[in-house]
Amino acid sequence: MSSLEDYVTAIPDFPHKGIIFRDITTIIQDPDGFRLAVDGLMKELEDVEFDLVAGSESRGFIFGAPLAYNEGKGLILFRKKGKLPRETISEEYDLEYGTASLEVHADAIKPGDRVVIVDDLIATGGTVEAMCRMVERLGGIVIRCIFVIELKGLHGRDRLKDYDVRSLIAYEGN
Amino acid sequence: MSSLEDYVTAIPDFPHKGIIFRDITTIIQDPDGFRLAVDGLMKELEDVEFDLVAGSESRGFIFGAPLAYNEGKGLILFRKKGKLPRETISEEYDLEYGTASLEVHADAIKPGDRVVIVDDLIATGGTVEAMCRMVERLGGIVIRCIFVIELKGLHGRDRLKDYDVRSLIAYEGN
Repeated sequence: MSSLEDYVTAIPDFPHKGIIFRDITTIIQDPDGFRLAVDGLMKELEDVEFDLVAGSESRGFIFGAPLAYNEGKGLILFRKKGKLPRETISEEYDLEYGTASLEVHADAIKPGDRVVIVDDLIATGGTVEAMCRMVERLGGIVIRCIFVIELKGLHGRDRLKDYDVRSLIAYEGN
Repeated sequence: MSSLEDYVTAIPDFPHKGIIFRDITTIIQDPDGFRLAVDGLMKELEDVEFDLVAGSESRGFIFGAPLAYNEGKGLILFRKKGKLPRETISEEYDLEYGTASLEVHADAIKPGDRVVIVDDLIATGGTVEAMCRMVERLGGIVIRCIFVIELKGLHGRDRLKDYDVRSLIAYEGN
């Protein structure tokens, strides 16, 4: 019997030299791997009530969508600038070099909505921190942040210390 | 009782003047809308056997992922250049101005694999045609191409005339 970790591929020096990229495509292209990941995420949510699942472009959609569908919740998209057609709010976040920004529809989250943020991987936590800020600006409550993979060496949990953070697989390095 | 069409928002002049953008975010942010869409897609696949679900970055992932998970199939990602970390093949396709390209991992599809291509919307069909070519270059068989929304005025079905094309909602215009 395979564990979820067996489906992750380590790619040295991608996208830059010195980085070990944790590739989730080998999880999802195998029906058993994909099932282990989505079922694992759902298990992490058994003890909480929530209204919405939020995912960021584009790997967040891969895990957020089956989670939302199977839990009977709405799916909220956080996308890069200019992709969402209705009124949005946005937040900038830091990249290794420079900044990027994410947007969400202003009507996607209503005051009091309980939101679960899902992503494939937590590294420095910058993207998710920006998502949390946007959820809160719209009056929502971040119930939990769940990830398939956590890179502990990048200390995303410290950055998200005000939130309930869970991951299915944690790697010591970066 | 609402129909799936009731959850689509028409946005005039987005992203360019004269275009009516069919916004699927109002489908997916509502649990009932999202369920209608995914259940509708699954119903379109009741009569076929297949091995893999293929979706393109990034809205294809939103419908492809729950479909793959719930059907117990693998999910194959078609992504923009440079996003996939392992060996890829790629194809160019035409945009309104210029060209773009999509890539897929070379090991994602094996000879004889039966592939269902899913996307939120079919317009001119250029993206999906490129995906079909890549599936076939890897020895796979395109079993069906299914879409939540079809813009009939852009004649994507003509371009995909060699394939079995289905859509849940068809609009006459573009």
